[in-house]
Amino acid sequence: MAGVNQTHDPALKSWVPSANQSPGEEKDTPFPLQNLPLGIFRRRGSNEQPCAGTAIGDQILDLSACANANLFKQFPAAGAACHQNSLNALMTLDPQQVSQLRSRIHQILRSDAVASDQAAAAKHLLPAAHAELFVPSKIGNYTDFYASIHHATNVGRLFRPDQPLLPNYKHIPIAYHGRASSIVISGTDVLRPSGQQRIAQEDPVFGPSKRLDYELEVGMLIGRGNELGSPILISEATRHIFGFCLVNDWSARDIQAWEYQPLGPFLGKNFATTISPWVVTQEALEPYRVPPTPRPAGDPKPLAYLFSDPDQASGAFNIELEVLLRMQKMNQQGLPAFRLSQANFRSLYWTPAQMIAHHTSNGCNLQPGDLLASGTVSEESAGSWGSLLELTRGGR
Amino acid sequence: MAGVNQTHDPALKSWVPSANQSPGEEKDTPFPLQNLPLGIFRRRGSNEQPCAGTAIGDQILDLSACANANLFKQFPAAGAACHQNSLNALMTLDPQQVSQLRSRIHQILRSDAVASDQAAAAKHLLPAAHAELFVPSKIGNYTDFYASIHHATNVGRLFRPDQPLLPNYKHIPIAYHGRASSIVISGTDVLRPSGQQRIAQEDPVFGPSKRLDYELEVGMLIGRGNELGSPILISEATRHIFGFCLVNDWSARDIQAWEYQPLGPFLGKNFATTISPWVVTQEALEPYRVPPTPRPAGDPKPLAYLFSDPDQASGAFNIELEVLLRMQKMNQQGLPAFRLSQANFRSLYWTPAQMIAHHTSNGCNLQPGDLLASGTVSEESAGSWGSLLELTRGGR
Repeated sequence: MAGVNQTHDPALKSWVPSANQSPGEEKDTPFPLQNLPLGIFRRRGSNEQPCAGTAIGDQILDLSACANANLFKQFPAAGAACHQNSLNALMTLDPQQVSQLRSRIHQILRSDAVASDQAAAAKHLLPAAHAELFVPSKIGNYTDFYASIHHATNVGRLFRPDQPLLPNYKHIPIAYHGRASSIVISGTDVLRPSGQQRIAQEDPVFGPSKRLDYELEVGMLIGRGNELGSPILISEATRHIFGFCLVNDWSARDIQAWEYQPLGPFLGKNFATTISPWVVTQEALEPYRVPPTPRPAGDPKPLAYLFSDPDQASGAFNIELEVLLRMQKMNQQGLPAFRLSQANFRSLYWTPAQMIAHHTSNGCNLQPGDLLASGTVSEESAGSWGSLLELTRGGR
Repeated sequence: MAGVNQTHDPALKSWVPSANQSPGEEKDTPFPLQNLPLGIFRRRGSNEQPCAGTAIGDQILDLSACANANLFKQFPAAGAACHQNSLNALMTLDPQQVSQLRSRIHQILRSDAVASDQAAAAKHLLPAAHAELFVPSKIGNYTDFYASIHHATNVGRLFRPDQPLLPNYKHIPIAYHGRASSIVISGTDVLRPSGQQRIAQEDPVFGPSKRLDYELEVGMLIGRGNELGSPILISEATRHIFGFCLVNDWSARDIQAWEYQPLGPFLGKNFATTISPWVVTQEALEPYRVPPTPRPAGDPKPLAYLFSDPDQASGAFNIELEVLLRMQKMNQQGLPAFRLSQANFRSLYWTPAQMIAHHTSNGCNLQPGDLLASGTVSEESAGSWGSLLELTRGGR
């Protein structure tokens, strides 16, 4: 699958210097020419209408301004969508139109770009440090999966030592509906929530959560949706993914523990969910497709509606994820961020396509801009556990 | 609280004949002058932009046309909101502005209306039979409560005979997030969903649900919302309720039973939720305010954030609810609808204000148009049970 698309060619450089790795530098920019993630931004402090942009090195290319400058004249629908203050209009388009737009942006930003393209685009770069970023899509509905079997086992062990993994886990991509209204963009202050808690068998009390936690997750943003009553087949599911972002599913464990029976998480989760501002398109991740981590011998084969050979061959993505802790005091003392965990997205028990096929198998309709999060990504070893609940073994 | 508002006066009649109860008729119209519910409609078969309307008898008053005819000129913001294709613009207004609009509609429709008002409005009546109705608000988020202790006990008994009611129930208005995208209006065909089911200890299978159920609920539609991080105090909660509708929370019990552990209902519910098209404003229901059904002696007093004296005095509504079954064959044979159950909204363990105070107690933000459903309304006796799960004791 990879390699056919020139936008993946690792040898190509951009005329935006910060987009290119300098020899000897330790860290790549997250935004080289090969990424070109999409987001919604405006100049910080301005009252401009936010619009679509692409991150390139330490700059943001203003796609709305590029459309106005006729740089996308061959792709009028995609160009027009760049003026919107959410990516939903782009998400609604045929994936091929978005792909064409991305190829065109790549062409404009390449070091061997046509001079007039480069000159026109250079006027519409804004240093990312001067930009205000927004939640990239209008998220109609947010679904949170539970697709890491290691996370499910770690959490289950705390609640049910004799039966950490419930009997349905290996058959169903377990999920629940989260709250869309409280999704915020990276960098937004998150307030410690208050709520009911019960310590031991005492009477419950109301007060600030003492067990605030994070959860490292990957989010899928849906492109084209499906009609109510028309499931998306697993063979088609990938075509409904627009791109991916990072998700921090903030969790108040004390509130969650007392409220979650029998209908699942509610106030322990819905006070805030943070997502990253840049949507890495699925196309940019094509070179990282891999087969899912093999299931242990003896595990049941997924039912037919959750199984396809192409998905088993390359339905996962090899993406290394890290959780870094950075506190004000560490910054003041010049200390580096502390790594809390590291885990790979491919380790999930269920692939993105399986999640979509399952979610819609009863006819439930997905819509452009919807967020489907993976659930906490944890691997087997403690160094990979994606929440404090796991790292501290329930706070003990 | 009741009685101060002329719109509640039961003696007043409308010049729309079908809005008035004829002596000797068994059934009142649901839409007398004292109700004036709001909804979104257009002429069936037209391509007009849907707009706001009020049901009056067997007619719908076109509020957008009334605004254009300058009938609401004293209330320009409310009049302008009537042109929208959802009630969200009205819901965002100060409740007093909506109340003024309602009083004005009442004045226009009264039998002693000013002749020029009546003449102008009469041109903008459409027989309800000629109208197409829409989901009344853009529902950003849908939350489903579980506020009937009798329902919770009946359902709990099926799953946990030794502990039907979980320890948190009497302390927390239990709720979970539902799916907003699959909310449909009364009369929309609902397809029987397929999904994973496990019979006894066999391997799970995928197929059409054999245990499709309804749930009788009341829905609250939110007017003004709250900022993320700013809880709504129970003393303020009532002011955030725009109105009420009926909700049928369709449930596939076999899918639900197999999937719901540990994160709650998902595909067993999200294939469709039906709501009624007419939003009965909270103001119209003021005469039906009553104290909540007293809790049994010895039950814990709600924590302070869930308790206010006014709410205990009149925070519930005396609304009798019925579930009627009508099948094509019954219609053909001229048989009346069969009543499956009857229960009163006031019987819930938690009031609407308690639900709102709890939902936002962690800072979660509600938005205009959000739907908060009560959960199945069941009372103690079998004749009041609001789902087949209860009436058939788990299908046995």
